[in-house]
Amino acid sequence: MLVLSSPSGAGKSTISRALLERHDHLAMSVSATTRPMRPGEIEGKDYYFVDQDRFEKMAENQEFLEFATVFGNSYGTPREPVEAELRTGNDVLFDVDWQGTQQLKQNARDDLVSIFILPPSLEELERRLFSRAQDTEEVVRGRMAKATSEMSHWAEYDYIIVNNDIDESVAQAEAILAAERLRRERRVGLPAFLRSMGVGQ
Amino acid sequence: MLVLSSPSGAGKSTISRALLERHDHLAMSVSATTRPMRPGEIEGKDYYFVDQDRFEKMAENQEFLEFATVFGNSYGTPREPVEAELRTGNDVLFDVDWQGTQQLKQNARDDLVSIFILPPSLEELERRLFSRAQDTEEVVRGRMAKATSEMSHWAEYDYIIVNNDIDESVAQAEAILAAERLRRERRVGLPAFLRSMGVGQ
Repeated sequence: MLVLSSPSGAGKSTISRALLERHDHLAMSVSATTRPMRPGEIEGKDYYFVDQDRFEKMAENQEFLEFATVFGNSYGTPREPVEAELRTGNDVLFDVDWQGTQQLKQNARDDLVSIFILPPSLEELERRLFSRAQDTEEVVRGRMAKATSEMSHWAEYDYIIVNNDIDESVAQAEAILAAERLRRERRVGLPAFLRSMGVGQ
Repeated sequence: MLVLSSPSGAGKSTISRALLERHDHLAMSVSATTRPMRPGEIEGKDYYFVDQDRFEKMAENQEFLEFATVFGNSYGTPREPVEAELRTGNDVLFDVDWQGTQQLKQNARDDLVSIFILPPSLEELERRLFSRAQDTEEVVRGRMAKATSEMSHWAEYDYIIVNNDIDESVAQAEAILAAERLRRERRVGLPAFLRSMGVGQ
């Protein structure tokens, strides 16, 4: 389980997309949400769209690895699709905030690697948020305040990437993914491989 | 501190050389030894050549991070040059066996990342040892026995690389090095950087 968190505008979506495109063994976790479907969104790809009753029932039944309510809409990570991916040997990528990360750590049976992505500076973050040209100044101010608050949780993450350059940041995230797959405790086939060479432990 | 261990013939020297060539911030640890200098060897580059008295004095004074005696010759890693490299912010690469790795873990004040390199198979290891064409069959048999014994310590290492393909193995070692440098606890400049953005912890 690979978690990417960052304040809005730090480049997390771009990095996630690049990782998913280049690594077949990596699957994006799809959240369930109660918010209405937007034009162009696809059920089961962007989100699982559910009504409030269904969401609450899923939460009660502990079907979520993490969930939260933001601006009146609920979002949650269903446990079963994640565990199905992990069972096939795939890795799963999560785009969640620091609270989601904390819940994942508590609720996930499988192990979790977390990366926090920082902007190179507050000025650059502000510039990126404005250059999206889709938000009003007031919304950007709100996002900047939220960014500072989100960033205060950097120390709860395993790895930190400062996103000065998107290609470099993608390469760094790929290095983390590659290295973590080489960790001894994840090399599940190794003991048998070594026994085949006459090597015990 | 980055430790590479492997049985003789698994490709450790080739991987070490490639890492050192490509990464300026990585320095090879140079051992002290009591064995005689061989033609072409350079004092302070291949080894620090010392006599038995000097070696024993260094060991008594705890000037070694690890040391051992093999076939009557003593080898040891002097502490001071390693710590000098680490103080400049460089990483230091160690080519030691499992016993050296254990001693480094105990004696090093700084943190240590360890990689064990495995051959793709015993047959391939044997083939590589023979193809060096410098050892007699008896020597190769001895190395094979030693290899099995060395490999039995694979579970004491952080990462495992199976050296099927040298380029891929170098890339994997580079990914580990890159990822470990991104670990939060090693990002010593980050708290100040974040404070400059108005972010506490």
